[in-house]
Amino acid sequence: MEPFKLTQETLDEIRSLIGAQNTAALQEFFNDFHYADIAEIANELQLEEALFLIRTLDSERTGDVLTELDEDLREEILSELSPVEIASELAELDTDDAADIITELPSELAQEVISEIEDREHAAEIIELLRYDENSAGGLMAKELIKVNENWTVTTCVREMRAQAEYVTRVHSIYVVDNENILKGRLSLKDLLISPNNAHIKDVYIPKVDYVSVNEDPEEVAKIMAKYDLEAIPVVDEMKRLVGRITIDDIVDVIKEEADKDYQQMAGITQDVYADDSILDLTRARLPWLIVGLIGGLGAAFIMGTFESIISEHAILFFFTPLIAAMAGNVGVQSSAIIVQGIANDDIKGSIGARLSKELFLSLLNGLILAVLLFLSTWLWKGELLTASAVSLSLIAVIIIAGLIGTFIPLFLNKRGIDPAVATGPFITTSNDIFGILIYFWIAKLILGL
Amino acid sequence: MEPFKLTQETLDEIRSLIGAQNTAALQEFFNDFHYADIAEIANELQLEEALFLIRTLDSERTGDVLTELDEDLREEILSELSPVEIASELAELDTDDAADIITELPSELAQEVISEIEDREHAAEIIELLRYDENSAGGLMAKELIKVNENWTVTTCVREMRAQAEYVTRVHSIYVVDNENILKGRLSLKDLLISPNNAHIKDVYIPKVDYVSVNEDPEEVAKIMAKYDLEAIPVVDEMKRLVGRITIDDIVDVIKEEADKDYQQMAGITQDVYADDSILDLTRARLPWLIVGLIGGLGAAFIMGTFESIISEHAILFFFTPLIAAMAGNVGVQSSAIIVQGIANDDIKGSIGARLSKELFLSLLNGLILAVLLFLSTWLWKGELLTASAVSLSLIAVIIIAGLIGTFIPLFLNKRGIDPAVATGPFITTSNDIFGILIYFWIAKLILGL
Repeated sequence: MEPFKLTQETLDEIRSLIGAQNTAALQEFFNDFHYADIAEIANELQLEEALFLIRTLDSERTGDVLTELDEDLREEILSELSPVEIASELAELDTDDAADIITELPSELAQEVISEIEDREHAAEIIELLRYDENSAGGLMAKELIKVNENWTVTTCVREMRAQAEYVTRVHSIYVVDNENILKGRLSLKDLLISPNNAHIKDVYIPKVDYVSVNEDPEEVAKIMAKYDLEAIPVVDEMKRLVGRITIDDIVDVIKEEADKDYQQMAGITQDVYADDSILDLTRARLPWLIVGLIGGLGAAFIMGTFESIISEHAILFFFTPLIAAMAGNVGVQSSAIIVQGIANDDIKGSIGARLSKELFLSLLNGLILAVLLFLSTWLWKGELLTASAVSLSLIAVIIIAGLIGTFIPLFLNKRGIDPAVATGPFITTSNDIFGILIYFWIAKLILGL
Repeated sequence: MEPFKLTQETLDEIRSLIGAQNTAALQEFFNDFHYADIAEIANELQLEEALFLIRTLDSERTGDVLTELDEDLREEILSELSPVEIASELAELDTDDAADIITELPSELAQEVISEIEDREHAAEIIELLRYDENSAGGLMAKELIKVNENWTVTTCVREMRAQAEYVTRVHSIYVVDNENILKGRLSLKDLLISPNNAHIKDVYIPKVDYVSVNEDPEEVAKIMAKYDLEAIPVVDEMKRLVGRITIDDIVDVIKEEADKDYQQMAGITQDVYADDSILDLTRARLPWLIVGLIGGLGAAFIMGTFESIISEHAILFFFTPLIAAMAGNVGVQSSAIIVQGIANDDIKGSIGARLSKELFLSLLNGLILAVLLFLSTWLWKGELLTASAVSLSLIAVIIIAGLIGTFIPLFLNKRGIDPAVATGPFITTSNDIFGILIYFWIAKLILGL
């Protein structure tokens, strides 16, 4: 079928069914719906309506719906549900999704919910996952996977796999462990099928298997899975014991969130916000860099203030300060963006010195072209050869310095183990504004002999 | 095993083996290597060395290595290989990867290579894929998939599937078609196994299956697959005939490329470049927006020029122009980034009017806070109450206008079917610079009674 598109008519129809509390018709209507589509609809409803819908549909599907809801709505709905109701939703979820929802609950409620989960093994696995840092492979993995012991025979293995497969939506790989649960390798279904029933797994498994540690950074896991085109990767603890599995759908989310974060950082937004967030949340995300920008602007104003004595004779120098600041900012952002992206893709090889000298030539080339344009415009406008030269030569210097700063800072931060993306956008723009204007006046004064 | 990390020692060792033309040792060395790791190594070698390596290893693996190489190196290597050699590499690749490589060849060579592919069915499938626009589902899909006819019996189906599975690395789903190759649904392996051998597929298949059209935008395909957590999706033509399949690993690449593109657009980089590209390529990508920025700066200078008469008395107004331009730019970039991201995630609902009025309140709040800070700083610095008021009130107006422009332009472009990401970064910064300075002087003049 074609992908679902939510129309106003559909939404109105659902609302009137909810308004009429027509449980049977709602269940009938949503019978064939994917949970992601139900979540999309619920996100458009009022809290009361969404709550009625969640309670009407069976928890086999609403558990998944919960994981796909907007965070705010999910929080509100969870606060209206009883611990028993939440527990019955979680019972239907994979351990990683259940753990993510529990993390969002107030700690007392979380305890209650966990104690209400009927399947105690499922509960124990969720509790184990809660131990791991959200921002690690452990925080990303699920306990659901298929594993077999190297000492089993093929017959035992097939029987055990059948039992395990009931709880695992997508098999992907069969992992092989020893008696201590240490990851030894993987098993090909084909090899399993052509082996005699009494053969031991240790004689047929493939010892070559990629894995990551529970403490690995999610971004690193994403890189590894993308590089090797993996759809699932086993996760091991410090003793190399198999503790979980990460699947590609979670990695797709990691890649998107990471990209969103870098994009927002570049735009000077300091925390994860969405267009639909409250004005207060949006202000909290936007104001910090604006204040930094304001301080930068004040700095630029003070610098210009120190050159006030030349303003009546060389007013034109002051007219070009927004241009100089803008060029310094743009060049800095371009250089830093290319370096940040190169670092993210592991493309940056060679020394910092080599990078800087490349950027030097690059900025010199760009600066020369732009300086010629600026020279001609200024000359045509004011007819003063010396001023036009001063302004354009300063522009070259500013562009070179801005390019070098934009290149150096992310490289430096990365060497220090700090995410270089923090140094893009307004950070580079603001620092380059100040440096740019300082250099500009200094060189212009020199040339004009002031 | 732990993920491979390329060290200088490993690289030196490989280079000396290549230098000594020690084919046997090289084959032995790379025996266990993943093609993505071989590509990573080859990217660090000289052309001659990489070529020797590719020719030494068997084409079963070097085909995949080719797809993972940096584009420049791949192009150079392909130009050194004979049509027969290239054809033997392509023979080992899935149709989508083979088609991608053929697209990069000069058209005459491409013809020769295709005619040298021994498996004519494989060649025909590659030729079919070449028909589709690179930037569509058709350009992304592979011909490799498992499909069964609804009129087959279970026995026939199992036999046919075995034969097909030989050419398909990952099965994912079994698609069901009718005699006209029209997609009818999918088949669960479990249902197949529990059905009697003489049952017909049409009685056991699941008619519910997500699909996309060959003409669908890759970004849209990515959204659908991420939303429904799909690992593969069938592609149909206008007649709903099953023509191919897209797998999640290709979608991961689409998501990353899209994110890189948006990031670069925000940074004012006009084409896809990498840190390692030539200075000329980097200049081509960076110069266009710098020239736009220069024109914007000249515009700002001309505006300031028209206020030259007040410069001696109100020099301080001119000192704040970089601050005003920076704030207008930053606010505009923040607003547009949030809207562009919201559009990309299908989060922007409601009217443009509603968005603009929200942004109005938001900018007013931010503007007020920033204006208070600016007022206090200016007053402390110069002690002129009226100037401080003029500057800070102008700032509020500039921030509001900048926020509204940043919100409106991406919404407007999106309504017109233009990618709103083009309106982020320097575009918003530059237009807001000019508007900002114009509004600033106009309001300041009003307040100061000039």
